[in-house]
Amino acid sequence: MERLDILVTYDVNTISEEGKARLARVAKVCKNYGQRVQMSVFECRVTRAQLEELEAKLLKVIEPDKDSLRIYTLPGGREKCLRTHGQDRYQDFDDPLVL
Amino acid sequence: MERLDILVTYDVNTISEEGKARLARVAKVCKNYGQRVQMSVFECRVTRAQLEELEAKLLKVIEPDKDSLRIYTLPGGREKCLRTHGQDRYQDFDDPLVL
Repeated sequence: MERLDILVTYDVNTISEEGKARLARVAKVCKNYGQRVQMSVFECRVTRAQLEELEAKLLKVIEPDKDSLRIYTLPGGREKCLRTHGQDRYQDFDDPLVL
Repeated sequence: MERLDILVTYDVNTISEEGKARLARVAKVCKNYGQRVQMSVFECRVTRAQLEELEAKLLKVIEPDKDSLRIYTLPGGREKCLRTHGQDRYQDFDDPLVL
């Protein structure tokens, strides 16, 4: 089944306790579909159906009048699109694990 | 000349004063090429040469052992790739201004 690499970026006021709690909930949802690569950036690999499902779940968490949620699809896949510098939390679970 | 839509995401510890200052410098550099759409996410439209120039400038600002910088190209353009919810700071300067 075709899978899409997508990027979820979420902007919330983390000074407020409610904002921190929403960010934690967004992270929890996203981690079921991919991984956290920055504090408020998540890379997920999903089917089209999962993308709709993920989006619907996130819309239940965010406060539209306070937060910003952006979902970008990365046509051709993340490897083709991405340059990363500095700290990189990403772990490719498709790669064989090096011990 | 061909232009690429790119996304710059920058993760820095903004609790420290040095982190805040680096985020401000990253924002200043990125704003010459595009706009800030979230606290640490910037959308830029650049030529290939500008992409290299922007990346080189950002590498002078970040602390690689503390920060994370990710640059994603959006093949086919941002309009094709993006779903946005909640607050949206983006302004399309190519669109006619509605007064």
